[in-house]
Amino acid sequence: MSEKPVRARHATISDVARTAGVSRQTVSNVINAPQTVRAETRARVEAAIEQLRYRPNASARRLRTRRSATIAIRAEEQAGGVSGTIYDRFLHALAMEAGHRGRRILLFAAEDASHEIQQYRSLSYGDDVDALVLTGTSHTDARIDWLVDHRVPFVSFGRPWSRPRLDDPLVPWVDVDGAAGVRLATEHLWDRGCRRIAFAGWPSPSGTGDDRRSGWEQAMRRRGWAEDGLVALRADAPEDIGAAARAVSRLIDGLGPDAPDAFVCASDTLALGTLLGGGRGHPVIGFDDTPVAASQGFSSVAQPLDHVARAVLDLVDSLTAPEEDAGAGDPAARHVLLAPRLVVRDEAAPTASRLWS
Amino acid sequence: MSEKPVRARHATISDVARTAGVSRQTVSNVINAPQTVRAETRARVEAAIEQLRYRPNASARRLRTRRSATIAIRAEEQAGGVSGTIYDRFLHALAMEAGHRGRRILLFAAEDASHEIQQYRSLSYGDDVDALVLTGTSHTDARIDWLVDHRVPFVSFGRPWSRPRLDDPLVPWVDVDGAAGVRLATEHLWDRGCRRIAFAGWPSPSGTGDDRRSGWEQAMRRRGWAEDGLVALRADAPEDIGAAARAVSRLIDGLGPDAPDAFVCASDTLALGTLLGGGRGHPVIGFDDTPVAASQGFSSVAQPLDHVARAVLDLVDSLTAPEEDAGAGDPAARHVLLAPRLVVRDEAAPTASRLWS
Repeated sequence: MSEKPVRARHATISDVARTAGVSRQTVSNVINAPQTVRAETRARVEAAIEQLRYRPNASARRLRTRRSATIAIRAEEQAGGVSGTIYDRFLHALAMEAGHRGRRILLFAAEDASHEIQQYRSLSYGDDVDALVLTGTSHTDARIDWLVDHRVPFVSFGRPWSRPRLDDPLVPWVDVDGAAGVRLATEHLWDRGCRRIAFAGWPSPSGTGDDRRSGWEQAMRRRGWAEDGLVALRADAPEDIGAAARAVSRLIDGLGPDAPDAFVCASDTLALGTLLGGGRGHPVIGFDDTPVAASQGFSSVAQPLDHVARAVLDLVDSLTAPEEDAGAGDPAARHVLLAPRLVVRDEAAPTASRLWS
Repeated sequence: MSEKPVRARHATISDVARTAGVSRQTVSNVINAPQTVRAETRARVEAAIEQLRYRPNASARRLRTRRSATIAIRAEEQAGGVSGTIYDRFLHALAMEAGHRGRRILLFAAEDASHEIQQYRSLSYGDDVDALVLTGTSHTDARIDWLVDHRVPFVSFGRPWSRPRLDDPLVPWVDVDGAAGVRLATEHLWDRGCRRIAFAGWPSPSGTGDDRRSGWEQAMRRRGWAEDGLVALRADAPEDIGAAARAVSRLIDGLGPDAPDAFVCASDTLALGTLLGGGRGHPVIGFDDTPVAASQGFSSVAQPLDHVARAVLDLVDSLTAPEEDAGAGDPAARHVLLAPRLVVRDEAAPTASRLWS
């Protein structure tokens, strides 16, 4: 890193800094975190880089620092419903936030959970990544056990439903409080005068699905509903528009004069199915605030995905900090539960719904 | 790479090979392309790796080969409609196929096109990637000019609509023949007896949209329709369910007794809008074969995304081959136009549509 009086065969970062009239740190910033450098300075440094044909070697840099600044995440397969866009949006938010922090996202695909673990093994052997980010946690999730056993740094978006304790400090996670979101939706409908509020959700056991349903149960119980009344107001269906439509249609037919006067749903896919299955005349609230909710004009619970991405990367930073005192620090800070918000649309006169009737 | 008689401080690949009783190449395969190794052999090699705590250093490996085996792609922002899943599915297919070839996908985000170019610059300075994969080409696309000018290896999924010539050998691309897909859909409806087949598409100019519309125009012209008749059968709307519903509703109202008897659409988003805007009693064919098409029971043109991913990676391989004779070879092989197929669903009695009426 010493400044040489004669021009070296390959230009160095010092040559670039001298030519552009900036510090070496500024040149490094232009390369690694360009958004932190003023446009005018950036342009000058880039001109110097091109003029001198300076090529910092990323592999040499990584070797020097023993840190790839890369986090790996699996490319999720397309979900059946309309809520698959959530993973998309999270991935985009994660890539954007990682870029701001000078980190890279390595994307890999896996045929199933055991292939995914195989990929973890290969990635962690190779020192290619600093940490893994998990999505799609479930009750039968061998991945987290493997990662904990092999001491591979990771952060989960989604609570580790497969583990005996959700507050295990060895399993850092960020999640959105689905129960709170659904409770909010249910209370909103109650305040508007609805009383027989049904819930369309996924069959148990489902970590995320059971969590969301519990928010509806809590809100309804607090307002005097008993267990058997709630069971009668439940429609269960997988994440599929047609299946949800049929389940809701059966629910309405079965209840006759006691049919629901409103619906809260575990996803926008189920909400669209609910509209198609006979819920159309009543308020319907979905979950995930997808483009379908916006275009159909129904309310939906929105996940704060930018916030999730920042929290995931904060945890990655803390796990991979060079001087980290592992085991110390506040274990509770390793579990971040974020509040969703309700995006209210005018259930009385949704634009597109009028086109349906 | 010489075999040492005494145990080195760090285990080498030869140590692992000897312990597992396999060749060094097999150990390398287990690390870099595990799917090519039999499960039993793989387990033995992995046991030896763990026993010896062997850690091949990926950065050192890359430095040696001057090749990161990594391709970079931008994380696309969520589209407004239901067809955003196409990018998702392509990304998944690309990651899966890249894994089979021992290549990695580096995902980055960008706020806009100029930020994307900024990222290209940073990625190519750093020697971090072998090639870039572009998506979302348009008529106003500065990215391709930049990549060509800076001799950065890239492959585009989507034709380079912004360039004067689509057959420029400096711009390797893979695309799906949208015109052929829409022609197929139009002919299918004609064969079923439809005669006033309308087209719901995106406003011009749109590379992809104009290409798809041209397939409908070709099919209708061959069957005797003149230009002014076709203009009257066009509904233009952006990629938004509500906007499409309104455009189709206006089209139907405007034509009165001459209303369309079938609809072909540039996307499933527009097809869903068409159903909501009054197309419900008639056959409607979408494009992209999203989960919405499956669950609503309408036919749709499907893009062969696995095939696209393979073709993109074939081009990446040919661009980054060490002994490549640049400029030679068959330029036509750098442009791959793949045929889509029509997924026919029973337009007479789509399951979910019955629930709407």
